[in-house]
Amino acid sequence: MKRIATILIVLSTVACNKPGVDKEAEGEKLMQLSREWSKAASSGDVEKTLSYWGEDAVMISAGEPILDGRPAIRKMVEESFKMPGFRISWEPQSVEVSEGGDMGYIIENSQVSYRDSSGIPVVLHNKAVSIWRKQEDGAWKNVVDISTPEPSDKH
Amino acid sequence: MKRIATILIVLSTVACNKPGVDKEAEGEKLMQLSREWSKAASSGDVEKTLSYWGEDAVMISAGEPILDGRPAIRKMVEESFKMPGFRISWEPQSVEVSEGGDMGYIIENSQVSYRDSSGIPVVLHNKAVSIWRKQEDGAWKNVVDISTPEPSDKH
Repeated sequence: MKRIATILIVLSTVACNKPGVDKEAEGEKLMQLSREWSKAASSGDVEKTLSYWGEDAVMISAGEPILDGRPAIRKMVEESFKMPGFRISWEPQSVEVSEGGDMGYIIENSQVSYRDSSGIPVVLHNKAVSIWRKQEDGAWKNVVDISTPEPSDKH
Repeated sequence: MKRIATILIVLSTVACNKPGVDKEAEGEKLMQLSREWSKAASSGDVEKTLSYWGEDAVMISAGEPILDGRPAIRKMVEESFKMPGFRISWEPQSVEVSEGGDMGYIIENSQVSYRDSSGIPVVLHNKAVSIWRKQEDGAWKNVVDISTPEPSDKH
């Protein structure tokens, strides 16, 4: 009976502890992904920038129609990257990850700059929240991206 | 050996399946909470409205400083509810819940109306994302609430 008890304890530990879920490490992974993503976006790399969004990702920006799915987001990214003087970058501020390590969110500060139709540089400061889901292959992908303008004294 | 195998199978099923997590039911619970919350807010009930936010909730609105924690949110709610003609309401559109049933998010449409300093009614339409965490007592609380203006042709 002692051997069976030992087997049961070992089995339940191995099977139930989800040893892969280290919330702090997953959170740091998300912060790092956000920083790499910002680097890809600010360098104008369309394909690399698109690779961080999941297939069904939703993007919600101030005063813009909701972008539903990667094809709609691709169109927006391609058009934005062609605007004169366009540049976007952001810095992740904080991250939270679910107990199972399958969902997480980041609060970010972002900056968008471009030249308006008169050639005058415009800089917009936003707060953003990005929500991430871990895919079946273990890769984190962005599923929701929403941003809203900072108070105008920061513009 | 057959009996031991049976015990092992039963044990691993009981111990690892997290029978409490029904993602669909948790999602429906969140949608229902969002609807009840909107009803409380649109009726101007300060205490009931505040009860849906977690202690450390963060609120991010267009052009406003970030509100960090329930005391800051309370101040904003109390001031808003005193504005002439103020009314806020929203409708949840979709919900997603993490595998462990401890984190979820809702995409919402919201409307805010009030009278400006000349007494003219203003109506703002927003898209919002609310992120929820299940607390230790099993209650879902809102932890992040971010909204951004709809395209101006909807105003």
